[in-house]
Amino acid sequence: MVDNVVQELTSDESWKLLATVELGRIALSVGGQPDVFPVNYYAGDGKVLFRTGEGTKLSELAVNERVAFEADEHTDAGGWSVVVKGSARVLVSTGEIAAADELPLRPWIPTIKYNYVEISVDEITGRRFQFGPEPERYPV
Amino acid sequence: MVDNVVQELTSDESWKLLATVELGRIALSVGGQPDVFPVNYYAGDGKVLFRTGEGTKLSELAVNERVAFEADEHTDAGGWSVVVKGSARVLVSTGEIAAADELPLRPWIPTIKYNYVEISVDEITGRRFQFGPEPERYPV
Repeated sequence: MVDNVVQELTSDESWKLLATVELGRIALSVGGQPDVFPVNYYAGDGKVLFRTGEGTKLSELAVNERVAFEADEHTDAGGWSVVVKGSARVLVSTGEIAAADELPLRPWIPTIKYNYVEISVDEITGRRFQFGPEPERYPV
Repeated sequence: MVDNVVQELTSDESWKLLATVELGRIALSVGGQPDVFPVNYYAGDGKVLFRTGEGTKLSELAVNERVAFEADEHTDAGGWSVVVKGSARVLVSTGEIAAADELPLRPWIPTIKYNYVEISVDEITGRRFQFGPEPERYPV
């Protein structure tokens, strides 16, 4: 069994890696049916922020604020993946929105997205992995 | 409002794009808490397949088989994202496992993953988007 090809990252390492990427995926769930969307985001200060227009994401968040969020990056040799879990809420106060407007959060798709959604992160986990051939599987 | 920068894809287009990428993310949900994992996968014939060892993914799937699965790709100019929703189950019959062994599903991480998980897809949606500056936001 080769175990050193998957390395658990510390919370600090995971936050640092999250900050190096701009596209992640948010997982939501309504009535036991998961949903997942790509979003471009900003991560820092224990929070993940993204923006969204009116639509499915926002209506699903209104039903269940619990979310998971993932970002990853890889080359041919290996990669990393960071997953956070937390609660999401739409920013409503003018002060919060003004502060969010100052963040380096560049929307990639040129449609109007009025809403900032902020994930308060309860848990962050990260793994770094090396790619390689799988060991022989033996009959179970 | 610029709408032509986001293009809805047909089911056929979405399946074709899914087949061009090997890394996706599966979203699960247990008791209203979503979870999300990167997986390398094979997509075709109305199904998405991936392999996994014993672990959180497998135990969460045992509680709730409903899943969402996403893959995407982007350059500086634009990208696409495909999302499927469906039910996941672990393959158990020798015949199914033998057939799955023939698929071009290359595990990236060299640890032993005995289980094939197959998502029967109920719904597939895809979007292609162009990146660009956001239009001016006006006060709501």
